[in-house]
Amino acid sequence: MTDIAIVGKGPAGWSCAMTARMRGLEAVVIAPRNDTGLLRSAERIDNYPGMPQVSGEGILDSFREQALALGAQERSGLVRQIMPMGQSFMLLVENDVLEAKAVVLAMGAARPVLLPGEEEQVGRGVSYCATCDGLFYRGKRIAVLSASMQGVEETHFLAGLASSVDYYSLKRHQTDDLDANVTLMDEKPASIGRDDAGITLTTNRATHCYDGIFIFRAAMPLNMLISDLKTEGSFIPVDRHMRTNIAGVFAAGDCTGKPLQVPKAVGEGNVAAISAAEWIARLG
Amino acid sequence: MTDIAIVGKGPAGWSCAMTARMRGLEAVVIAPRNDTGLLRSAERIDNYPGMPQVSGEGILDSFREQALALGAQERSGLVRQIMPMGQSFMLLVENDVLEAKAVVLAMGAARPVLLPGEEEQVGRGVSYCATCDGLFYRGKRIAVLSASMQGVEETHFLAGLASSVDYYSLKRHQTDDLDANVTLMDEKPASIGRDDAGITLTTNRATHCYDGIFIFRAAMPLNMLISDLKTEGSFIPVDRHMRTNIAGVFAAGDCTGKPLQVPKAVGEGNVAAISAAEWIARLG
Repeated sequence: MTDIAIVGKGPAGWSCAMTARMRGLEAVVIAPRNDTGLLRSAERIDNYPGMPQVSGEGILDSFREQALALGAQERSGLVRQIMPMGQSFMLLVENDVLEAKAVVLAMGAARPVLLPGEEEQVGRGVSYCATCDGLFYRGKRIAVLSASMQGVEETHFLAGLASSVDYYSLKRHQTDDLDANVTLMDEKPASIGRDDAGITLTTNRATHCYDGIFIFRAAMPLNMLISDLKTEGSFIPVDRHMRTNIAGVFAAGDCTGKPLQVPKAVGEGNVAAISAAEWIARLG
Repeated sequence: MTDIAIVGKGPAGWSCAMTARMRGLEAVVIAPRNDTGLLRSAERIDNYPGMPQVSGEGILDSFREQALALGAQERSGLVRQIMPMGQSFMLLVENDVLEAKAVVLAMGAARPVLLPGEEEQVGRGVSYCATCDGLFYRGKRIAVLSASMQGVEETHFLAGLASSVDYYSLKRHQTDDLDANVTLMDEKPASIGRDDAGITLTTNRATHCYDGIFIFRAAMPLNMLISDLKTEGSFIPVDRHMRTNIAGVFAAGDCTGKPLQVPKAVGEGNVAAISAAEWIARLG
């Protein structure tokens, strides 16, 4: 079991990890392998104190290096779900489980928008995890909705099980490496539903019927990530101690709302680490 | 008239100035000449992202340089009082006046403690400004209570007016340069009061009677600085936008409460600048 699981490798996450380490706590920073944050493409940032005229990439790389030098651990993978277990939290990172005493959410502002009807079909045909649910679809017809190369990789696995896979791109990415029983669909998913034959995907052109639909995005929708997490639009409301409405779960950086700024994220990561440290100390 | 008057030259103040400049606003950073903040003496700070293993002095110097390079203005002097004037604020900086559209308080956590009875006698014999009130004490007996060399300088001026000056050190500092009619008192001021003969200063040894008492500290007590500013102990409560209870007055950094940390101060300065910019935009 680790002390603090930090979801997100932006300025808030790394700042949180540094302060956690200075407090003598273990900190694991988790994010998908391919960082898709907007900061990395920022050419120049002038208002981050201490690093004049730095690029977004320069900030991210130096923060990471500093946090790792302080002993923070880094882990690649999408955090699919976070479950409160009383005295700790279980995090499903891709297909592994990580246990932590406290959680800091620092995933940035980009939140995936669910398709209409998607939430209602989760566990009834909609899945976010090929390894978890793939075996249920042996010999069946499935659809993959994917926003990244990760979906292509997962589709290799699913194609070996399912009879056929229709592959829909939610966002432009390389798709020239698909298996023989995978069809690249040139349609835009619009909504998910259900009829007598199974689960349905309605696109801009037609309604298709499948046995299952797998969805791969760079981040989990907040309401799927932790149940009962209070949100305001796509942001997580916090108090001045960076506490969310769930005890032991803190949030920092862009995911807590405007202004979406590096110094603010760094400050909030710092405060979240100290609040998490106090929470852990009280656990005894 | 300037846009944002920033009271305090610590991480919060400089961070605020940088973001203000990036928003195209004028920012004046004001603090007493001799910075007495604890940060300057910090040997090493490890958890400020982007500056691994930096000294407190290194942080302060590089933040200042970066803010000045962005066009922030620096002004030396104690801010004695801040008066809301409807659409702007008047700041009494030593004996000068500065007008600003918005104010950001970033004076750090060190707050002077008033002597018992001091507040009741302000304007009735207790003064914080030699230039403002000195002439009232021509040929009179006065006391100076001082926490720094600034008090020695002001005492030169007062000694040229008053018949006699008793000089009390509130905090150890160099006092070997006092005028002939100035007596260095080896007593510890305990409280201020009033009797028929005038204003009284009670020390650990005796009660002395004077015509006036001048008090020089490195910072003004919060309730003297802005009337009606809401405080909690020695801190200024703020919301997530760094708003105080006074419209147009924001606060950032250690003065808003724990944790007293550089990253937190930097983040709050950033947010305060953006909130002040929004306030100024609404003024039209």
